Amino acid sequence: MEKRLRMQIDFIIEIDKLKRIVRQSYLTDSIRKENDAEHSWHLAMLAIILQEYSNSKVDILKVIKMVLIHDLVEIDAGDTYAYDLKGNEDKWERESKAAERIFGILPKDQKEEMYDTWLEFEQGITMEAKFAAAIDRIEPILLNYLSKGKAWKEHGVKEFQVMERNKVVQEASIELWDFIKGIIEESVSNGYLSV
Amino acid sequence: MEKRLRMQIDFIIEIDKLKRIVRQSYLTDSIRKENDAEHSWHLAMLAIILQEYSNSKVDILKVIKMVLIHDLVEIDAGDTYAYDLKGNEDKWERESKAAERIFGILPKDQKEEMYDTWLEFEQGITMEAKFAAAIDRIEPILLNYLSKGKAWKEHGVKEFQVMERNKVVQEASIELWDFIKGIIEESVSNGYLSV
Repeated sequence: MEKRLRMQIDFIIEIDKLKRIVRQSYLTDSIRKENDAEHSWHLAMLAIILQEYSNSKVDILKVIKMVLIHDLVEIDAGDTYAYDLKGNEDKWERESKAAERIFGILPKDQKEEMYDTWLEFEQGITMEAKFAAAIDRIEPILLNYLSKGKAWKEHGVKEFQVMERNKVVQEASIELWDFIKGIIEESVSNGYLSV
Repeated sequence: MEKRLRMQIDFIIEIDKLKRIVRQSYLTDSIRKENDAEHSWHLAMLAIILQEYSNSKVDILKVIKMVLIHDLVEIDAGDTYAYDLKGNEDKWERESKAAERIFGILPKDQKEEMYDTWLEFEQGITMEAKFAAAIDRIEPILLNYLSKGKAWKEHGVKEFQVMERNKVVQEASIELWDFIKGIIEESVSNGYLSV
């Protein structure tokens, strides 16, 4: 087999491991926790369906690529829970090392494109990165709401933490932030999230 | 909440069920079977990485949308194993009914776009549909190969069936068909697939 195709297939095989990285959010049926591959698929669907709410027009292909690859670094670095302060201290170091190794399996041109797309997402400056980050916030809030706050309760997460972490959604979409605020308030009044 | 956003959120919640639809292929670690949401994510990644091998240039955004949504109908219709002749008899009827219901949760314009994209994939005429179908063949062959033919063995699948079902890959990509033929031959010589 040609060397280029071999590298691409090696990458495709390596990233199968994303299906084994378990997150903290439960599926809507509350039976089991979501894994990173399912999460990434769901985000791509949210991006497609909700793109009209972006505060300014986004390159949707770029957003989709971002959400599909944003968690690949967790194959090496593991999932760091959003509200885990200690785990978030060295997150950048662990994840950038992982990005080098995992995207480095690809041929050079594709490695660079993937790495740059991941970095753009992490830096959160462009509108595509902001929109992708908003989508990455909205999905777990929906799952938490639908599983009656199961993961929030397990981790003793409070309303102010959820508000603080998720207020970045407004930089991507005023309408989606209004929607998310409503879900958070309803979660509090339903007893899914404590104050 | 605005009615349009409510419909979109209802769809996003409904499709969470794709994570519960289990396929026959095992993950590369052979421990458990893959579900449709993970599978769809993996296909989108294959499409992005392997697009250069398409026999003619494809609209990659269209291909990605196809692979992300192609299995949503299985939320109602269930997964029909590729080599299940009986299950495949009424597959079209079950799946088109499912497409009407599931995409019908969306606002009319998005329902139409999704339904048409799904139908284009199913009809397999356009280059995007052929390429998406090829990707949908290649991923399970890779998983079967890496799990030493576990699913093939469980279902008593033979080499001629795998060759017959997967030869459509050549309509999308001569190079990827050559690669897949090699994997099938190696599977036979390694005892993963019987003749």
